[in-house]
Amino acid sequence: MALDLHADPIDLTAALVDVPSESGQEAELADLVESALRRDAPHLEVVRNGDAVLARTNLGRPSRVILAGHLDTVPANDNLPVRREGEHLHGLGTVDMKSGDAVFLHLAAAVAEPKHDVTFVFYDNEEVEATRNGLGRIERELPDWLRADLAIVGEPSNAVIEAGCQGTMRVQLRIKGQRAHTARAWRGSNAIHGLYEPLRRLAEYRPRTPEIDGLTYHEGLQAVRVHGGVAGNVVPDDAVLDINHRYAPDRSPEQAEQHLREVFDGYELSVVDVSPGALPGLDAPAAAELVRAAGGQPVAKLGWTDVARFSALGMAAVNFGPGDPALAHTRQENVAISDITQVTQVLRTFLS
Amino acid sequence: MALDLHADPIDLTAALVDVPSESGQEAELADLVESALRRDAPHLEVVRNGDAVLARTNLGRPSRVILAGHLDTVPANDNLPVRREGEHLHGLGTVDMKSGDAVFLHLAAAVAEPKHDVTFVFYDNEEVEATRNGLGRIERELPDWLRADLAIVGEPSNAVIEAGCQGTMRVQLRIKGQRAHTARAWRGSNAIHGLYEPLRRLAEYRPRTPEIDGLTYHEGLQAVRVHGGVAGNVVPDDAVLDINHRYAPDRSPEQAEQHLREVFDGYELSVVDVSPGALPGLDAPAAAELVRAAGGQPVAKLGWTDVARFSALGMAAVNFGPGDPALAHTRQENVAISDITQVTQVLRTFLS
Repeated sequence: MALDLHADPIDLTAALVDVPSESGQEAELADLVESALRRDAPHLEVVRNGDAVLARTNLGRPSRVILAGHLDTVPANDNLPVRREGEHLHGLGTVDMKSGDAVFLHLAAAVAEPKHDVTFVFYDNEEVEATRNGLGRIERELPDWLRADLAIVGEPSNAVIEAGCQGTMRVQLRIKGQRAHTARAWRGSNAIHGLYEPLRRLAEYRPRTPEIDGLTYHEGLQAVRVHGGVAGNVVPDDAVLDINHRYAPDRSPEQAEQHLREVFDGYELSVVDVSPGALPGLDAPAAAELVRAAGGQPVAKLGWTDVARFSALGMAAVNFGPGDPALAHTRQENVAISDITQVTQVLRTFLS
Repeated sequence: MALDLHADPIDLTAALVDVPSESGQEAELADLVESALRRDAPHLEVVRNGDAVLARTNLGRPSRVILAGHLDTVPANDNLPVRREGEHLHGLGTVDMKSGDAVFLHLAAAVAEPKHDVTFVFYDNEEVEATRNGLGRIERELPDWLRADLAIVGEPSNAVIEAGCQGTMRVQLRIKGQRAHTARAWRGSNAIHGLYEPLRRLAEYRPRTPEIDGLTYHEGLQAVRVHGGVAGNVVPDDAVLDINHRYAPDRSPEQAEQHLREVFDGYELSVVDVSPGALPGLDAPAAAELVRAAGGQPVAKLGWTDVARFSALGMAAVNFGPGDPALAHTRQENVAISDITQVTQVLRTFLS
């Protein structure tokens, strides 16, 4: 089979969904994307990097825009092949994020002379641990391909521009106790019982909702895993609480960590991983132009996406893609066709 | 090799320890015990049942005493073969409970005409789930072998008579919540956070220490396992707390359960398993005689042992064996030789 980039982005979405591409198994889809770009968008310089495909114009425009979409999906959940029901496409990846990929691929073929130079980045392994993310590899091996004034990441955003993104940090809180037989519990110290005070602080925590550049963020502090216990007759000596903190981009990772150390004062805390947030950056000219083309009020991005990677590279970066992010990774994943059309129109206006 | 039942119980302990017999793999040791009993204690009727070996006198005495010991051990923990250091034997099973077995085997050969009829029960699978316990199988298949006036279980008791035993009950407390992405945590309800109130009740719980027939029991209520969490970015919808309650034998299992339902009023609680306690029963004549032979004050048994199984069959039952139960299941398991000698002397006096 081959992909037809001149097709309607809706049909193109369906075609992409029906090529399975769970993280680590993107080769077939990357092959199809590469050959389609070479055939249907001959005005682009195309390179292959692992299972990522990159393509760009070299028109000497005063500004450059990256359109980035990951090709991989989470594992299927009995939601393949694609299925159209009325005004929605159902199936794995319809939201996250083959509809965004389809819009970008369509524009790659359709807009041969954009008013900004454009770099398309279709990459692998976004849905797995950050170290495998194809963008990291591209950054190391093809750094000049990631230079631009604005990055548009096609993650689902309900076809609304989501600017900035919140940082995310995972910390581990550990309670130590002393083992004993439960029949002689007073000889030990129960680490699980010791969790009650940190859990109380979590339950009573009131997150900030700061406003930044007119966008309202919503922080969060949530236990995401708890684990402890030795055996059914042993006072446990160890209990571990994993906590995920989502913090607005007015705080650095260091400030966020300091905040958590204050919240959990008196407890052993270690940072498991951290990703910085990204300020909205909507004052950059290309970003302002995109907001005008979208004709609406941008909103704050609450989840963490690769927008933050582009932001860290020194450019404005936004999420803009079809689909409701709340449906991502669910069995009932589906996208409104009107979202696909809307994003395509806005980006065509912006680029033309 | 063969076991020599006429050997000193200390040497016999060492010989038993050096025949590995992790639960489920007792066959070799059971074979040795069976052939040694048939050779060295020809006055006994011997039967084999699975990997258990039973032997008894049939002298028509007015009372019958069971001497029961399990042959299995927990898995080795780099503590084999047996090693003598000064006045201690070190190694897997020295405490739990091959020294007790050795005393019983020695007496089986040494006391040919005991003043009570004696039934020896060497059984399998005590260290694993109750359903596999060899005593249960014997109860079903050879019920008349478990009739007696007094059962002496050779579990480690520091060579002191431990009477009665506490009941044990495990319950599961479950908190339900609602999943959401941690970036939009307010859409969900965090089940792990909800654990703080039950954990507070556990941490603040003050256990009873009732006195029964002059023995002081010590109850306990301990979380033994906690588990919850979906993924690093998901508000968890489920958290489970496993709780072990040790209760004195003045309460029935039903009363103990009712007590837990009051402590955790408002929460979903299910009983995972329950074993009743056993009242001391020291007013039975044979038990009183044993206490006199031991020449000391008996103490309350806090842990749950197979004493309760015998108690449930309608006889007095005590723990009486060499070794410190606190060393059972530890890598540094070791028994004082003086304990082995002491238990042997008391039981020889009691039986002769």
